[in-house]
Formats: sequence, C-alpha cells, structure tokens
Amino acid sequence: MSKLLESVTISERLNKQIRFIMEVDKLKTILRRNHITSHRRENTAEHSWHITLFALILAEYSNHDIDILKVLKMLLIHDIVEIDAGDTFVYDTIGARDKAQREQAAAERIFGLLPEDQKNQMQELWQEFEQRETTESRFAAALDRLNPMLMNVYSDGKTWIDHSISVQQVYNHNKHIAEGSQELWDFAQQLIEYAAEQQFLQR
Amino acid sequence: MSKLLESVTISERLNKQIRFIMEVDKLKTILRRNHITSHRRENTAEHSWHITLFALILAEYSNHDIDILKVLKMLLIHDIVEIDAGDTFVYDTIGARDKAQREQAAAERIFGLLPEDQKNQMQELWQEFEQRETTESRFAAALDRLNPMLMNVYSDGKTWIDHSISVQQVYNHNKHIAEGSQELWDFAQQLIEYAAEQQFLQR
Repeated sequence: MSKLLESVTISERLNKQIRFIMEVDKLKTILRRNHITSHRRENTAEHSWHITLFALILAEYSNHDIDILKVLKMLLIHDIVEIDAGDTFVYDTIGARDKAQREQAAAERIFGLLPEDQKNQMQELWQEFEQRETTESRFAAALDRLNPMLMNVYSDGKTWIDHSISVQQVYNHNKHIAEGSQELWDFAQQLIEYAAEQQFLQR
Repeated sequence: MSKLLESVTISERLNKQIRFIMEVDKLKTILRRNHITSHRRENTAEHSWHITLFALILAEYSNHDIDILKVLKMLLIHDIVEIDAGDTFVYDTIGARDKAQREQAAAERIFGLLPEDQKNQMQELWQEFEQRETTESRFAAALDRLNPMLMNVYSDGKTWIDHSISVQQVYNHNKHIAEGSQELWDFAQQLIEYAAEQQFLQR
C-alpha cells in the first residue's frame, strides 16, 4: 500500500476521494465467469466499461425516456461491491443465498471511503440499480443481462457449455430485459435461439 | 468470429450498433505500460472504466463548469482507437511520430462500424478530447494524466523505474493538468515530489 496519501498536503475531502478511486482499482482483479472474445475470463472493471459503453450506444432502445447521465453513473458503479463480495455466478443458487447481505456490507465499506455526500449518492445509485423499479435502472439492468449473453455467444458459448446451462434457464433469467427494452428483448430471444442451434445451450 | 449477426432479424441500425460494441471488446486485450496495484499490466478497457469513474468522483475540481455527461462520454471512448493503433507509451518519441496518423485511421474504421449519426458523434467527441481546447476536454485530459501517475505510485513506481523516467520528464508531460484543474495539479506536483523521494523517478 502506498504511503502517498499520508505524505501530501491536500484537503481531507480530496484525500478521501483519491483513497476511494484507488481502492476500486481492485475491481480489475475480480474475475467473472464470462470470457472475452480472446478467450480469457473477463474482469469486472473491463465489464463495467463495456456495459457503460453499451448504454451510450443503445440508449435509444429504452422503452421509456431515460436520464442517460444517471444510467451511465449507475453502470460505472453497479459492480463495485464485487471487490469485497466477489462475483456471484448468476446460476449459482447457493451463492445467491447471502449475496444481498455480502454486497450490502461491501457497499458500506467501499462507498464509505468517500466524503459523506458522495457516499450517499453512490449508495443511492447502487440501491436504485439493484431494486430495478425506475426506468433508468430497468434499462441499465437490461443491458447488464444482454451483455453477458453476447459475450457468451462471441466466445463460442464456453461458460454456458462448461456449466451445462439450458435454454430455459437463460430465458427465465433474462426475460426482465423486456422491462427495460422490448426491442433488445426481441433481439435477445433470437440470440438464445441461435445459441441453442449452435449447441451452446441445452434444450 | 460469431455468425450471430448474420442469423438474426434485426434492424440494420441495431446490427451496426451491436457489431461496434462487440468489436470494442478487443480493447480488453490492449496492454498499457502501467501496472495495476496487483502488479500486472493494465489493459485499456479497465483503464477506460477507471478514468471515467475518476471524472464522476473528481468533477468538482475542474477549473470551470463542465458538462459532466460530455466528459463521461469522452472518457468512455477516448482510447478506443488503441484497438488498431496500439498503446503508444507517453515517453516513446519514435512511436509518437506517426501516432496521430495511426489513430486517425483507427477512428475511421472503428467508429465507422456505427450508424452514420453515431459515428459522427463519436468522432467529434474523440477529436474534441484530442484537441484539448474545450473545458470538458481539458478536464478529461487532466484526469487522463493524473490517473497513470497515481497508478505508477501505487505500483511502486515500476513503469517509471523500468524506463528510467526523470522528474523533469514527468513534470513536463503532465503540467497541462493545470489547464483542467489547478487543484489536481497542486496534488500532482506533490505526488511527483513523493515519487522522487521514493526513488521511483530520477532527479
């Protein structure tokens, strides 16, 4: 750990902010189940960039008008809790049991590094994303489901095949895409069909 | 390469958009000179996430009022050209000679995957970032200089030491941070002093 922040004379506020943005560097070490197109496992930092870019390019497909700035912010921070809580595979029913609890504790610690006002903003954004009750969070969540499906198809279905995932599991887990974007759900259903034809998914 | 996009019935526009957002997956394979805090080299996708988060947290330090949405968009796409043009090390004077030309060609090809309107928007954002003439691009560029300095300090100066970089080189290369944020440049100068004391940089 660097002693930089003990050695410089900066405001307490900036000190906390730098502490936070360097703490989250650790997100680059959190491996997801997904593979990138060059066939290594993806980490959560690069996923977070990719999904935020998805929002920038695909915003027009939201079912409803959205505040795109809010969606971008939400996606930038949506998985930061994985630094402490790890990445829970979406089809892992055991890991799912205490996921919410682990992630809540992580949000407390990590966003808690920030000045109070920013801590509260980040906590609220993250809660909104998790609760999926607003148009912004529904659209953000739709992208967060579409993205791994595309990653799977583009890496020859490796993660689905390795875990013997079925068409029905993928369908059930991802159907809430329609709440954020009917048009992207239409596409996703075709993608599932394609993946089944390629035997990436079990019928 | 997946045949998905030849197999589904979606609009030409959405087809182009998906082609683009999956093409840029390759940014995850572009290695930078910087190391992350766990001491492997950083890739450009995770850098892009990190720097966009820097903007979200440090926006208040801009010298002038900024359109934060524009800054976030700019930072999300600022290094996409590296997919074709590679990462040119900032102290590589030979690579710097044809950098602009290589990056221009990359921007044409990669943003050219998008529908015309989005291609133009992305090209304009990228050009604005490169030219550093607006308040948004000056602040974005300041963060893009502060970030690798912090990464270097937090990874024990490895990249600086490996390339025998001097205080003067770092000072000259980064002093334009002041154009975007005087307060962050004050911090960065203290960081340089700290790095010199730690012998990460040569006097």
